Amino acid sequence: MVKKWQKLASEKLADYRIFTVWRDKRLSPRTGREHDFFVLDSNDWINVIPVTAEGKVVLIHQFRHGTGQVTIEIPGGIVDLEDGDPSVAARRELMEETGYVADEVIHIGTVEPNPAFLNNKCHTYLALNARRVQAPQFDGAEDIAVEEADLAEIRKMTEDGRIAHALVIAAFYHFNRYQARQLNGSKLID
Amino acid sequence: MVKKWQKLASEKLADYRIFTVWRDKRLSPRTGREHDFFVLDSNDWINVIPVTAEGKVVLIHQFRHGTGQVTIEIPGGIVDLEDGDPSVAARRELMEETGYVADEVIHIGTVEPNPAFLNNKCHTYLALNARRVQAPQFDGAEDIAVEEADLAEIRKMTEDGRIAHALVIAAFYHFNRYQARQLNGSKLID
Repeated sequence: MVKKWQKLASEKLADYRIFTVWRDKRLSPRTGREHDFFVLDSNDWINVIPVTAEGKVVLIHQFRHGTGQVTIEIPGGIVDLEDGDPSVAARRELMEETGYVADEVIHIGTVEPNPAFLNNKCHTYLALNARRVQAPQFDGAEDIAVEEADLAEIRKMTEDGRIAHALVIAAFYHFNRYQARQLNGSKLID
Repeated sequence: MVKKWQKLASEKLADYRIFTVWRDKRLSPRTGREHDFFVLDSNDWINVIPVTAEGKVVLIHQFRHGTGQVTIEIPGGIVDLEDGDPSVAARRELMEETGYVADEVIHIGTVEPNPAFLNNKCHTYLALNARRVQAPQFDGAEDIAVEEADLAEIRKMTEDGRIAHALVIAAFYHFNRYQARQLNGSKLID
C-alpha cells in the first residue's frame, strides 16, 4: 500500500502566465527523508471532439510553440474563471477556434495531463451536431485552419503520427469507450 | 494553410531538473507581430505496457507530486543520455520500477505530451512475456507497489477515473490500435 507524502512547505518560484512554478518540500513515508519537487500549478483544461450531422470530426491545424511545428488537433484550451463549468469552456473554445456551435455537449472523460508535475485535469467533451455558424475568432497569437475528417481518416492520422498530441489521443480513447458503451446499451459511468 | 512562426530569440529562464524553462520570441506570419512564449525543454519520455504470459498487464501504484495523489499507471520515465535508444529506457524503467524483464519490447506509438509548451515526445512500448525476476529498485524519492490486472479491469479503471494519467490513456489507445492491426493481419505502420 503506497502512502501519501506529507507536504512540509510550498514556495512559489515563478509565474509563466499559463502556469506558476512551485517548489514543494515533502516527507517520504518510506524513508522519513525530505525531498523537493517542482510542481506546475495550472487551471484545468478542456478539449472537445466536435462531430457534425454527417459524422465528421472537426479538426484544427495550428502552430505549436513547444514543438515548433504545425499540429493537427481537436479544439481545446484553458478553463477561464468566467467559464465556471468546464462544459462552458468547451463550447467557448469550439466557437473561438472553429466558428462552430453544437446542440449537445457531453462529458466523456477526464484525464490528468501529467500527475508527476502538473496539478490540473483535462476534461473531454463530445459535441453533437456541430455546425459552422461564423468565422473563427483568433486572439493575437492564434492562426488556425479548420478541417473536417471522418473517423477512419482520424484513426490513420493517429497511427502515422500526424495526430500526436497526447491529450487528443486520450480524448479519442475516451470517445471509443463512449461509443462502446452506447453500442452495449450500458449506462454511462461518468 | 497554417505557417510556421520564425524564432527570433530564445532565453533560458530557469532549470527545474526535470526540465528547463525558455522564453522564445517568435514572429506571427499572420500579423507580423512579435510574441513571447514559454517553452519547457525536456528529454524524451517513455512508457511501457508490460504483458505477462497469462495476458495480464503490470501496473504500478505511486505517489505523484503534481496532483498530490497516489496514481495507478504503467511503468515509465525519462530517456537518459546513457540509454541511447528509447527502447533501452523502456527496459530499464520496467526493471527499476517493477523488477520485471520482458522477452520482446515493441514500439507501438509516439505522442507529444503537450506540443503547446513542451518540446519532447513520449514513446510507448509493448513488453511481451513480462515476468518478475527481482524486487524493484527504488531511488530515494520512489515508493512503488506493483499489481497485475487483466485488460477488462483496466478498461474499467480508465472509465471510472482510477487510471487517469493522459500518457497512460494514450498508451492504451495505441495498444488498442496495435491489437486491431494484428487482428487484421495488416502490416505495422510504425
